[in-house]
Amino acid sequence: MRIGIDAMGSDGAPEAEVRGALEARSLLGDDDRIVLVGREEQVRARLDQTPGWQDKIDLVHAEQVIGMNESPVEALKSKPRCSMIVMAEMHRLKQLDACISAGNTGAYVAASQMRLGRLGGVSRPGILVVTPTPRGPVALCDVGANVQPRAQHLREYGVMASFYMMAIHNIARPRVGLLSVGEEDAKGNELIKEANELLRGESAVNFIGNVEGRDLFRGTCDVMICDGFTGNVVLKLMEGMAEGVIKAMLQELAGKLPPEQAVSLKGYAKDIVTKFDYNEYGGAPLIGVNGICIICHGSSSYRGIMNAVRVAREFSTTRLNERMSETLSAGSVHG
Amino acid sequence: MRIGIDAMGSDGAPEAEVRGALEARSLLGDDDRIVLVGREEQVRARLDQTPGWQDKIDLVHAEQVIGMNESPVEALKSKPRCSMIVMAEMHRLKQLDACISAGNTGAYVAASQMRLGRLGGVSRPGILVVTPTPRGPVALCDVGANVQPRAQHLREYGVMASFYMMAIHNIARPRVGLLSVGEEDAKGNELIKEANELLRGESAVNFIGNVEGRDLFRGTCDVMICDGFTGNVVLKLMEGMAEGVIKAMLQELAGKLPPEQAVSLKGYAKDIVTKFDYNEYGGAPLIGVNGICIICHGSSSYRGIMNAVRVAREFSTTRLNERMSETLSAGSVHG
Repeated sequence: MRIGIDAMGSDGAPEAEVRGALEARSLLGDDDRIVLVGREEQVRARLDQTPGWQDKIDLVHAEQVIGMNESPVEALKSKPRCSMIVMAEMHRLKQLDACISAGNTGAYVAASQMRLGRLGGVSRPGILVVTPTPRGPVALCDVGANVQPRAQHLREYGVMASFYMMAIHNIARPRVGLLSVGEEDAKGNELIKEANELLRGESAVNFIGNVEGRDLFRGTCDVMICDGFTGNVVLKLMEGMAEGVIKAMLQELAGKLPPEQAVSLKGYAKDIVTKFDYNEYGGAPLIGVNGICIICHGSSSYRGIMNAVRVAREFSTTRLNERMSETLSAGSVHG
Repeated sequence: MRIGIDAMGSDGAPEAEVRGALEARSLLGDDDRIVLVGREEQVRARLDQTPGWQDKIDLVHAEQVIGMNESPVEALKSKPRCSMIVMAEMHRLKQLDACISAGNTGAYVAASQMRLGRLGGVSRPGILVVTPTPRGPVALCDVGANVQPRAQHLREYGVMASFYMMAIHNIARPRVGLLSVGEEDAKGNELIKEANELLRGESAVNFIGNVEGRDLFRGTCDVMICDGFTGNVVLKLMEGMAEGVIKAMLQELAGKLPPEQAVSLKGYAKDIVTKFDYNEYGGAPLIGVNGICIICHGSSSYRGIMNAVRVAREFSTTRLNERMSETLSAGSVHG
């Protein structure tokens, strides 16, 4: 397969992307290639420091770059030759089998949706993030592609996220919870009450009912379905807790320990924050598009890019999109 | 003033409430009294272990008790003589000036709203929680009284929460943010976009615009306004992080330190988790009711009850309700 990487996306672009592509070569099969899309001169200069890169990596030029803080709609209109659009267009033309970008998420999601369209049986794509927790990985979906969903969309996320956790995290029968304000079916707003009913009737989902925010860390479920507004708030809150509270706590702890211990604590702390960093799971797929699109965090290191390559390959080899689409298309005939 | 405490509410009732009431005597003025409402025999047996309790504490009998897991609506219907209803009714009749309960939140909120009604100028009461963060306290409102609000309700929460932070946390001009999925005014769902407009036009609020989940820990704002659904998810997620992730991290750290350090780490860890525990700020007021109702967490210790007594007193002495109502009633004439 051919895996496209937006070379201009991350905060550390193109270094993080180039190194990620180079390191990811070890993950590729004989027929796989990586295609870096971005400003050729800049990217080539970095690639050339590693002789033989051409064996596994191609380079496609794209002159324009979308900034992190640009408005997605306007940026895509004014920059038709940006790396994201070039990459999505190549994916549409089957010149690529998957795309990876750590750039402006809104622009990447919009470009992917516009060029690739939806998977059969899917009404609205969603972003799925796998969060590491002390009790194992939990998929959270949607985390922001769809901030005003209909209940039907949430049912579809339940189906797609189940397939994802089976294929990528080897969970046999993922337990799917619906994020609400109480466990009882009657708890929640109108959207959640309606989605609860739809999920109860969905045979492709092992639905365990409503769950609450705290269940994310309790091993209650393997998948947590939510509207994109709430999911985005949750995701950013977790980032904030990691960077704010946990660091503050560790600092305070360090102040109470003898100096030689405090120094080693700092090192451990970094390991631990990394362990609970969802970037380590290889980016967030935009599920429900007719293609494979992996979204990486803007602050991704080369490891984040490399992990995304691994996930893109597994996404393809497990025929995830075909299976999601078959199930959802069949469901829509009956429902 | 007379402060009612539901003696039967918390997980550790009535011990936590009785001890909380006894310890809170030191906070009271000459004319203040605490009224414990609950099963007289049970409560009196515990009070009698402290001679002289009668100087500051009264006891009012209520036979029935609502359990934590009962459906609020059904429980209130079937138990008209429960401690919450007796207390709310006394508040309505001005036999009490404030109520405190650590019991079933839904039942307490419903009982308070039904008996006390709304403050002039307020459309819907909301629950305000002050979360401790490394950068200072942040008020989050609503966290669950109103899971399907209108934009107008969010505007009112902005006004009320501002007054609350001025009065109780001595913040001169609280910066008010609206919880959304991006900083730009155009980001968010329809409710948030409309609320953003209303808050921009509200002169009683120092509105800084939309904020994101991570801003809770960044010192960006003093008040974060949200719909009750999202607010409830956020609150429970933070609880989950505290009990799950932080404990798991500390355990892992302990495993890396020499045994004698690991033991002391455990002690520090408890201190630190307490420091970030919002119960320490004295419970969550139900703002917008025509009375003073403080909600404590079910797991409250006597300290939580005691802090709630302190907040109830400050709520009263700073004439918070009068000031909120004047401002919102004036606003509704113009708007």
